[in-house]
Amino acid sequence: MHQASTDDFLATCATLTDECLARRLPGETTEPTRLHAAMRYSVLGGGKRIRPALVMATATAVGGQPEQALVAACAVELVHAYSLIHDDLPAMDDDELRRGRPTTHIQYDEATAILAGDALQALAFEWLATEPALTADTRLAMVRRLALASGSAGMVGGQAIDLGAVGQKLSVEQLEQMHRRKTGALIEASVHLGVLSVLGEGGGQQQQEQLASYARAIGLAFQVQDDLLDIEGDTSVIGKPQGSDQARRKPTYPALMGVDGARDYLATLLLQCQQSLADFGPQAGALRGMAEFVVSRRY
Amino acid sequence: MHQASTDDFLATCATLTDECLARRLPGETTEPTRLHAAMRYSVLGGGKRIRPALVMATATAVGGQPEQALVAACAVELVHAYSLIHDDLPAMDDDELRRGRPTTHIQYDEATAILAGDALQALAFEWLATEPALTADTRLAMVRRLALASGSAGMVGGQAIDLGAVGQKLSVEQLEQMHRRKTGALIEASVHLGVLSVLGEGGGQQQQEQLASYARAIGLAFQVQDDLLDIEGDTSVIGKPQGSDQARRKPTYPALMGVDGARDYLATLLLQCQQSLADFGPQAGALRGMAEFVVSRRY
Repeated sequence: MHQASTDDFLATCATLTDECLARRLPGETTEPTRLHAAMRYSVLGGGKRIRPALVMATATAVGGQPEQALVAACAVELVHAYSLIHDDLPAMDDDELRRGRPTTHIQYDEATAILAGDALQALAFEWLATEPALTADTRLAMVRRLALASGSAGMVGGQAIDLGAVGQKLSVEQLEQMHRRKTGALIEASVHLGVLSVLGEGGGQQQQEQLASYARAIGLAFQVQDDLLDIEGDTSVIGKPQGSDQARRKPTYPALMGVDGARDYLATLLLQCQQSLADFGPQAGALRGMAEFVVSRRY
Repeated sequence: MHQASTDDFLATCATLTDECLARRLPGETTEPTRLHAAMRYSVLGGGKRIRPALVMATATAVGGQPEQALVAACAVELVHAYSLIHDDLPAMDDDELRRGRPTTHIQYDEATAILAGDALQALAFEWLATEPALTADTRLAMVRRLALASGSAGMVGGQAIDLGAVGQKLSVEQLEQMHRRKTGALIEASVHLGVLSVLGEGGGQQQQEQLASYARAIGLAFQVQDDLLDIEGDTSVIGKPQGSDQARRKPTYPALMGVDGARDYLATLLLQCQQSLADFGPQAGALRGMAEFVVSRRY
């Protein structure tokens, strides 16, 4: 897939996702209004919608349409959004800026931010459990998969390891373990939910494994590029203070491998993404394009 | 049901629940160990297990065995436990004592407490979605019901209203609206999950409505008695500083109705509980006994 068509695909997915989220999230005039306003503020703040695009690109790769995977895409985005709200809290990363706007606890208050995150998590499972276009078995498989990916064995567990690692010296293996949970688990679940959206639990074993391999590689690539952007990026473009990981003495890939080493690793991960998709035809063009997008993004 | 047999029923339910939770929660030696230790500390801290007992008492009332409802009972308790962890945080109620022990953020730290709550919520949905003894449709109905009860239209929404109400003058109706969400929604869901555990979605409409009426009344009764205990109770017995609601200028039933008015209201609610169960036979003995327990409890 050419750069231009990947951009188109990402733009289409972002529009579908934004519209669906805006329509389905409780309105700001629904009581309790402040909580609902904070939920909408956090979710509709114009993220890149990488995870929803991955869900939909995977649905396309296994022969479906992006729209079939829209509810799964939005549920994943709700979990991602809730994790950012809680991550940004003073007791966690203490960030005041996210995507160029005040973080939720700055715009509202800490209590509202905690509750908005909690409510978004519940909403993700509610949406999956309620989607009439999917069979009961598929919905259940999605709830289970998303719960596992976001709980203590996945995303939240990764955040806990991350917090414990501040100021510590990790090996590359330990760093990878942390990221595989913190960001990788939800990215891997995005790909799996894309398959489930189209094929239910009937997806072929080999195809699943190839897509899982793709998901692991793109998840790590996303993190390596994130670490590189923290060093090289421009605050006004990345939407958070440049150098904030370094300032916090968080272990990063460039710190462990050097900047050139991290760039080489990124190239290896991109190759892994493409090789994982070798058996897929042109339908996997969006997944291939997304891998290129992730390693070359500037924000 | 006599006092003694209610005590026996509650003790049996608490033992079943404690054993199931202790067995199913990730072990303290599983990475990330600090997170898992905090989750176990928060959940296994010896709560009254009122909600699990309600789930199991309802299962009994519709002709089942308490054990059939055990996974639903434990899932509800996970949600309750997570809400207490987040409620106790400095940005929320800022409580340092819960059930006579340091709250989770005091025993561990704020970040770990936030994450432990987040992981417990995910775990509740994972357990429901995975329970092999229930049909896919029943599990989905439970996920949906628990998500609705715990999200912005339920428990979390009630907490948001509660936070906004500190120092405000509420009417009895507004106070009731707040409590119906904050504590009532999860109690009503407990009763509904008890029915689902035994009858799936095939429960009779009339029976459901009577049980829902019971659930609404016992939920409010629980709150009125909580408010009374805050005034009358003894710190060492109730496990939190006596008078803490007053100190925080939270609206309470005694503040609005006077202590005698609140006691009268409690008696009316008990009557409503018993009348709702008029068509049920001796199988509903545990539900009847629980209503008496809730209005007469001293802790």
